Amino acid sequence: MINIIVDAFGGDNAPDAVIAASVMAVENLGVKITLVGNEKLIQESADKAKLSLAGIDIVNAPDVIDIHDDPTDVIKKKPESSMAVGLKLLHDSQGDAFVSAGSTGALVVGATFIAKRIKGIKRAALAPLIPASDGYVMLLDAGANADCRPEMLVQFAVMATAYMERVMEIEKPRVGLLNIGAEDTKGRDLEVEAYKLLSKAPINFCGNIEARELPFSKCDIVVADGYTGNIALKLYEGMGLFFAKTLKHMLTNKLKNKLAAVLIMNEIKDFKKKMDYSEVGGAVLMGISKPVIKAHGSSDSTAFFNAIRQAKQCVDGGVINQISDYIGSQKED
Amino acid sequence: MINIIVDAFGGDNAPDAVIAASVMAVENLGVKITLVGNEKLIQESADKAKLSLAGIDIVNAPDVIDIHDDPTDVIKKKPESSMAVGLKLLHDSQGDAFVSAGSTGALVVGATFIAKRIKGIKRAALAPLIPASDGYVMLLDAGANADCRPEMLVQFAVMATAYMERVMEIEKPRVGLLNIGAEDTKGRDLEVEAYKLLSKAPINFCGNIEARELPFSKCDIVVADGYTGNIALKLYEGMGLFFAKTLKHMLTNKLKNKLAAVLIMNEIKDFKKKMDYSEVGGAVLMGISKPVIKAHGSSDSTAFFNAIRQAKQCVDGGVINQISDYIGSQKED
Repeated sequence: MINIIVDAFGGDNAPDAVIAASVMAVENLGVKITLVGNEKLIQESADKAKLSLAGIDIVNAPDVIDIHDDPTDVIKKKPESSMAVGLKLLHDSQGDAFVSAGSTGALVVGATFIAKRIKGIKRAALAPLIPASDGYVMLLDAGANADCRPEMLVQFAVMATAYMERVMEIEKPRVGLLNIGAEDTKGRDLEVEAYKLLSKAPINFCGNIEARELPFSKCDIVVADGYTGNIALKLYEGMGLFFAKTLKHMLTNKLKNKLAAVLIMNEIKDFKKKMDYSEVGGAVLMGISKPVIKAHGSSDSTAFFNAIRQAKQCVDGGVINQISDYIGSQKED
Repeated sequence: MINIIVDAFGGDNAPDAVIAASVMAVENLGVKITLVGNEKLIQESADKAKLSLAGIDIVNAPDVIDIHDDPTDVIKKKPESSMAVGLKLLHDSQGDAFVSAGSTGALVVGATFIAKRIKGIKRAALAPLIPASDGYVMLLDAGANADCRPEMLVQFAVMATAYMERVMEIEKPRVGLLNIGAEDTKGRDLEVEAYKLLSKAPINFCGNIEARELPFSKCDIVVADGYTGNIALKLYEGMGLFFAKTLKHMLTNKLKNKLAAVLIMNEIKDFKKKMDYSEVGGAVLMGISKPVIKAHGSSDSTAFFNAIRQAKQCVDGGVINQISDYIGSQKED
């Protein structure tokens, strides 16, 4: 049975939401869960919520990483934290995948140094699935590496291709390079060079994609350096919030508008669901030797459950092996 | 009387929309217009629309820059184009400002080489005003320079401060550095270094701003390198379009939804107006020795009229002198 290691003390709603999600996962996904964190607090939270922890192993980890910790060395400084202990278990093959809603920076550093990268992979990349007009687009790197070299962007494309094929079941997913124009001469040296390398890579490269087209599903995968990808991801989130607030104002500021709100309630719900990242899980930390999922910091139990499901899908789909195979074959060339 | 030089043959709706806008400007803004382009075609368009060209000088320029021309050398290759001739007039002090809806790339190169930069300014920057929850945010550089050095970002901040003070009448406009986190250690070398320089500059620097906050008016000015700024601007546009399409679908797919649309019609109109860039004009090409406005390529006559008004506001407000004064005083230090 697949065993998912779960950081019980990451995110705004830990440990309650994480524990509830773990119980749901055991009941619905046919997985085993190894819950890592302060054992006493986990047991107390479960008792309070009247949840049975059957099918869940608890591994004690007394320490917690918080947002004030410097992500670059917190894993070293807090080896007894739930995140560090969980990643150590993953490295020691005590589980098949790891899920955390804790600090992104700490997770990137920790996963790289404790769980290690896939052999041949230069950098791990953060890969959220962002909602678009027709399904989801995998955007990477969304913030793990502020600076990237062209060959890294090619590896990002290859890793995302493996994911979109194996988990999202998209045949030959279309890869776009985020850029400021359509022509192959556009962008900085990074994009010009990456364009050439992507054209030769065994992926379905569709050329440059302008940020304007990002919401319209012109691609299944969009690659960028981690600085640009993070700006795009955060702006996507911000604009979504901005529109939601605008719509809410539109539909509540007068009595007749409230009537309008009632009439289109279903459509608003559908849109909200569509724009909700957590429907598909969290962001995949691509390039680590086992699947690592970063759940959103604000995850409730449903969102965290979806992140666990996504971890299971990565294991089921053999995403890591697919990436390893490709990287191995490239090296022989 | 202020004389605005206008490129009659730039943009999707040239020359008709440009001519109509020029006539409106003469009638409503108390300016003189020098319209540059194929004289015969201008006269024909005016005749067809039954518009009088009183108060408008025409300077003949037989050639037109189109989107297939390489922007880096088109100004040299097409010296008789409406854009090149207009910029030459500006340089020769035959007018006080220049407005074009033509190729952005050609305008950046052309303005820099023909009309010249303000003494001491290292790079011209494209500065659109993007709609936010409370007014507008000036974002620069939005695409004139894919690569920037930290000191350029400081000059961008100074130039935008002059504009926001003198034209938008905002006292001590708040400047933010677009970045991937709030702390001064966040970002690439560019942002870390720019943060230090901005902190010492005589502007109202408010630190880093994450892309997520961009729509919420946390700042009046946001500085970034031209690659990042362009990605942010285009994503802003794309998300606006995405949201508009979603809203349209919501409000038309069923009969009862159409009723809802009628009920909130005014709010939708207000929102559309708010999100419409062209309400405030075009993007300012900051750093050129005289005001240069890039109107949106899809400008209709109203949008182009607003760009002409914006050019006049730059002249009236003495934006260029304000920038020169600052740059001069910095050099003496």
